[in-house]
Amino acid sequence: MLTPHEVFKTSGHVDKFADWMCKDLKTGEIFRADHLVEEVLEARLKGDKAARGEATKEVEEDEDKKKRKKKVKEIKNIKLPDEEVAEYENVLAQIDGFSGPQLGELIKKYNIVNPGTGGPLEPPIEFNLMFDTAIGPSGQMKGYLRPETAQGQFLNFSKLLDFNNEKMPFASASIGKSFRNEISPRAGLLRVREFLMAEIEHFVDPEDKSHPRFDEVKDVKLSFLPKDVQVAGSNKLVETTIGEAVKSGMVDNETLGYFIARIYSFLIKIGVDSTRLRFRQHMANEMAHYAADCWDAELQTSHGWIECVGCADRSAYDLSVHSARTNEKLVVRQQLPEPVTVEKFEVEIQKKKFGPKFRKNAGTVEKWLLERTQCELEDLAKELKDTGKISFKIASIPDETIELDTEFINIEKVTKVEHVREFTPNVIEPSFGIGRIIYSVFEHSFWSRPEDKDRSVLSLPPLVAPTKVLLVPLSSHNDLQPIVKKLSAKLRKEQIPFKVDDSSASIGKRYARNDELGTPFGITIDFDSVKDESVTLRERDSTKQVRGSFEDIVAAVREITYNGVSWSNGTAKLTPFDSQSGDA
Amino acid sequence: MLTPHEVFKTSGHVDKFADWMCKDLKTGEIFRADHLVEEVLEARLKGDKAARGEATKEVEEDEDKKKRKKKVKEIKNIKLPDEEVAEYENVLAQIDGFSGPQLGELIKKYNIVNPGTGGPLEPPIEFNLMFDTAIGPSGQMKGYLRPETAQGQFLNFSKLLDFNNEKMPFASASIGKSFRNEISPRAGLLRVREFLMAEIEHFVDPEDKSHPRFDEVKDVKLSFLPKDVQVAGSNKLVETTIGEAVKSGMVDNETLGYFIARIYSFLIKIGVDSTRLRFRQHMANEMAHYAADCWDAELQTSHGWIECVGCADRSAYDLSVHSARTNEKLVVRQQLPEPVTVEKFEVEIQKKKFGPKFRKNAGTVEKWLLERTQCELEDLAKELKDTGKISFKIASIPDETIELDTEFINIEKVTKVEHVREFTPNVIEPSFGIGRIIYSVFEHSFWSRPEDKDRSVLSLPPLVAPTKVLLVPLSSHNDLQPIVKKLSAKLRKEQIPFKVDDSSASIGKRYARNDELGTPFGITIDFDSVKDESVTLRERDSTKQVRGSFEDIVAAVREITYNGVSWSNGTAKLTPFDSQSGDA
Repeated sequence: MLTPHEVFKTSGHVDKFADWMCKDLKTGEIFRADHLVEEVLEARLKGDKAARGEATKEVEEDEDKKKRKKKVKEIKNIKLPDEEVAEYENVLAQIDGFSGPQLGELIKKYNIVNPGTGGPLEPPIEFNLMFDTAIGPSGQMKGYLRPETAQGQFLNFSKLLDFNNEKMPFASASIGKSFRNEISPRAGLLRVREFLMAEIEHFVDPEDKSHPRFDEVKDVKLSFLPKDVQVAGSNKLVETTIGEAVKSGMVDNETLGYFIARIYSFLIKIGVDSTRLRFRQHMANEMAHYAADCWDAELQTSHGWIECVGCADRSAYDLSVHSARTNEKLVVRQQLPEPVTVEKFEVEIQKKKFGPKFRKNAGTVEKWLLERTQCELEDLAKELKDTGKISFKIASIPDETIELDTEFINIEKVTKVEHVREFTPNVIEPSFGIGRIIYSVFEHSFWSRPEDKDRSVLSLPPLVAPTKVLLVPLSSHNDLQPIVKKLSAKLRKEQIPFKVDDSSASIGKRYARNDELGTPFGITIDFDSVKDESVTLRERDSTKQVRGSFEDIVAAVREITYNGVSWSNGTAKLTPFDSQSGDA
Repeated sequence: MLTPHEVFKTSGHVDKFADWMCKDLKTGEIFRADHLVEEVLEARLKGDKAARGEATKEVEEDEDKKKRKKKVKEIKNIKLPDEEVAEYENVLAQIDGFSGPQLGELIKKYNIVNPGTGGPLEPPIEFNLMFDTAIGPSGQMKGYLRPETAQGQFLNFSKLLDFNNEKMPFASASIGKSFRNEISPRAGLLRVREFLMAEIEHFVDPEDKSHPRFDEVKDVKLSFLPKDVQVAGSNKLVETTIGEAVKSGMVDNETLGYFIARIYSFLIKIGVDSTRLRFRQHMANEMAHYAADCWDAELQTSHGWIECVGCADRSAYDLSVHSARTNEKLVVRQQLPEPVTVEKFEVEIQKKKFGPKFRKNAGTVEKWLLERTQCELEDLAKELKDTGKISFKIASIPDETIELDTEFINIEKVTKVEHVREFTPNVIEPSFGIGRIIYSVFEHSFWSRPEDKDRSVLSLPPLVAPTKVLLVPLSSHNDLQPIVKKLSAKLRKEQIPFKVDDSSASIGKRYARNDELGTPFGITIDFDSVKDESVTLRERDSTKQVRGSFEDIVAAVREITYNGVSWSNGTAKLTPFDSQSGDA
C-alpha cells in the first residue's frame, strides 16, 4: 500500500493522477473545476428552458450529476441568446475532455463564480489525488499510498511468471485497500478516500487473445451499451450473448469477453439484480491512450448508473514503462515450434572508438542506436550507404548533432535463425470496486413486505449474508438453554456463522429485525425442542417454516447456503410447519 | 487505516508512540538510541571478559540482540575497571526503562560514538513511528496511518454494543494492515513498516472476568515464563494447565486465560511447533501503566524468541480516554437483578447564579464539580459544612481561585434507589502479528529429507497450504489432456485450490519442487487413468501413495484438508500404491 515515489512516477500517476480544483480565497471553499462548470452551465440551461416556458426534459442522470446539482441551489429563470445555448450544450458534450487551463478559460469566459456566495474563484490548479508521506527516519524518501492495486502486481511480474513455470497465459489477483484523496467524498460507499479494491491482472499473448474457457461462457446473454450508440447520443442497450459480441468485434477479444461474462456471473451470484446491470463501453476520448478496449459493469442505484467493475485491455503499457525505467526486461520468452529464419537490420558498433569520440556520452549514443526500430534502421542503413555517414540528434544531448561514418558503425541486413520468440504480454484487467458493489447489492436487495411497509427485508443471498442463522429461543426459560448451547456448538463445528437472539422481544419482532439485517435463516427453539431436539427453520424472504431434527435442519442450511441448493429442494424431507407464534 | 489526528492524540500515540534516535550529522546515519547503548556496552563487556581471559557465557539471545550485534563489528579486548563493569551491567538490566534524555546522558557519560566511524552523535531526539499525511484538498487536516487496528474498534464501541443487543460480554475483531515507520526494518517479515495485524477486542465486565467457555480449555497444558522467574534472571519455563495458571493467580483472570489457550490452539493448528512456543508474561516495567496483565506468545526462530501474539488485559483505559475526549459515554448499562439502596454524595448547583458569577467559565466550573469522585465530594462536603464555603482551582482556569458558598452550591449525602448499574467495560486484547506468525510457521515447517539434504520439504498443514493439490500428468501426451481437464473441473467445483504442473520435468522433480512449496498432495495422471479414471494420490511428508477412482481421491483430499481427518483414516479405503515412476 505504501509505495515508493519512483513506482508512481514511472506509472504516470505522479504526473497525471490529478483533478483540477478552483479555490475561493475568501471562503476557503474548494470546487472540482469540471464539476463546477458542468453544473453551472446546466443550471443556466435549465433556467433558460423555464424562461422560454419549455418543460425540462427529464434526462436520466448519472451519479455525479445528481450530487453536483446540490451546489447550485437556486436556478434563475433567465432566457439566454440562442447562440449561447448552443455553445453551452457543446461545452457540456465535451466536458470530460478539457484540460485545466481550458476549464480556467471557460470559467472566465462564462463568468462562473462560487455558486453559494457569488464570489470570484482562483484559476484551476492541479490536485494530485495520491496521499503522500515520508518513509524512514530521514524524511528524505517520499512515498504514496497506492491509488490502485495494479502496480504492485506489475512490479512482481517476473516472479509471477516464474511461479507459473514461464507459461502463458496466467493471471494474478490482489485485494486490498486503495486510497484517493477525493476533493469531495460523498454518497456513502460510492466515493470514499479509503476503499477496498480487487484487481485481476491477466497476462496474455498480444498475438493470441483467445481464452481456453471461453466456450463455457459464450452463451451468457448480457446488456451492452457500446460506444457507437453513446456517440450517437443514445442509451439504448444491445442485448446479445458474449459469444456474438466478440464475434461481431463489438468486444475486442475472447479474453476480454470471458472476463466480462465472469464479472456478470459473479455479480448475479452475490445478489445484483440483472435488470439493473449493464456493460458500458468507454468512448475513444475517455479511454486511456494505451487501452485497446474497456467496458464498465454499471449498476443502477438511486444515485444513477454507477461504475462498479472495470474490465480493460491495457495492452503492454504498464510492463513497458516499468521495464524502460528499471532496465529490467519484463518479457516472456517462448520456444518457437520451429526455428524461423528472419532477415533484419543490425547495428555493428566499434565500441573502442566510441569512448574517445563521445566520452561521457558514449553510452547514450550506443543505447540510442540499439533502440532503433527496424524501419528506422532501414533508413539509417540507406543514409550510410548513400552518403558514407549518418547524422542525428539525441534528445538528452540537445546541443550536438552526432555524425558517424563507417569507421564507427555499420548497419546491414543480416539473415538469422531464431529459436525463441520474445514478447511483452498484454494485460486484461478486471478491476472491482468492492464498496460500490456492496452498496448496490444493498439497494438491489432491500424491499418492504407489501402487507406492512415498515417491515423491511434485505434479501442477501445466503452465500453472502454475514450471519447465516439466527437462533431464537422461544422464551428465556432456563429449560431452553441447554438446547441453545448444543445447537450453538453444532453450528460452530459446522462453521456456519450464527447469532443468538435471546432478548425479551417477541419472536416476530426478533425475526423482523433480522430480516432487515439480511439474516437468511431463523431457527426457533421451543419447549418441544427440549423433548425431542426438533426445531423450526424459517426462511427470510418467504417466511416459510419447516420442522425437523436439528441435525437435519443444520444439514439443510448448509446445502442451501454453500451448495446452491434451492429452499424447496433443500427442505423437501422436512415437515412444513404452520407457525402459531407466527411472524406477528 | 487513514485516521484523523484527534483519534491518535486522544489514544496517546501522537505523544508517546515514538522511539529515540541519534543522528551522525557527518554520515547521515541514524541509530535507535536504546539499541545503540545496549550493543556498545555489551560489546565492551565482551571485550572485558576476553581481556580477563574469561569465556563468554553463551546466553540465549533474543531477536533484537542478534540483529543489533552486527553494528559493532569489532570487539576490542580491553579490560575495564570492576566498578565500570558493574555499572554497565546495571544499565543493561534497565535498558528498556530509560527516557530519551537519560539515554543522551548515558551516551555522553560512556563516550558512545558511531560504532562504524568513531564519529560523534547528536543527542537523542524523539521519532514518532506513525506515518502522517494530509487529508482533503486543503492540506489542513492531518491524518496518520494507524499503527494498530485497535483504536478503530474502540471508536465503534457504541455501535458494537448496540449490535450485540447491549449484552455483555462481547467481542469485535479486525484484520488489516497497520503501519509503523520503523527506524531500521529488517529480518524479513519480522520488522516491517507495513504489516498485517489481527486484533480481537473482548469487552468484559470489570467485576466479572470469568468466561463461559473456560471449562472447554482449562486442561490445555502450556509453557509459561512468568514475570517473577524473569525478574530472578531465569528463563526456566513453568509447565502447567491454563486452569491451574488462572487458579494460582499467575494468569490474572479466566477471560485472559481462555484467550491464551485459544491462541495456543490456533498456533498449533496452523503448524507451529509446540516445543518452540512459550507464553512470556510482561514484567511490571515493560507493561503499559493501565494494563492489568499481559502475556506474549513467543515463537522460537533462528532470530531468537519472537513476540508473535500479545494478549493483554487493557483495563478500561482506551474507552475512558476516548469518552473523556468526546464527552460521549462509552459505558454499559445493566438492569440490576434487584434495586439497591445506595448512599452517595451529590452536588446540587444553583445554575442560575453560576452564569452571572463565572460568565464564560460557568460550564467549566459546573463540569469540574460534577466530575468529582465520592471521596473528593466527601472532603468538599466537610469543608462546606465547616467553613460555609469551598475553594479550589481548576487547571484550565489557572489564574483564579474559585470560591463557592451555600448560596451557589450544596453537597450532601443522599440515599438513592438504583435500578441500573453503569460501568466502563474492560478490554482483553489478543493481538496477532500475522507476518511474524507466518514467518515462524515457515521455519517450524521446513526440513530436509535425511536421505538427500538438497530435497527440502515445507510441511504446512493441508488446511493452511495455499495450494492443496498438484496435478501431475505423467507425460505431455495428448491422451492425458482430457483427464487433466476433467479432474481440474472437478477440483474447481469442489473449491479445492490446485495447480497443474505439465512441464517436461520428471515426476520426481515436479514433486520435489512442490514439496518445497508446501503443496500437501500430488495427483498423478497416467495412461491407466485414461482407461478407468483411476489416479494416484501422494502425500508430501511421507511420500506415501494410494490409488483410486478420482471421485474417491478428491473425497479423501477434502476430508483430510478440511475436516481434520488423518491420512491413514482418510485413505483407508484406497489401494496402497508402490510407485514405479517413484520419487526419483
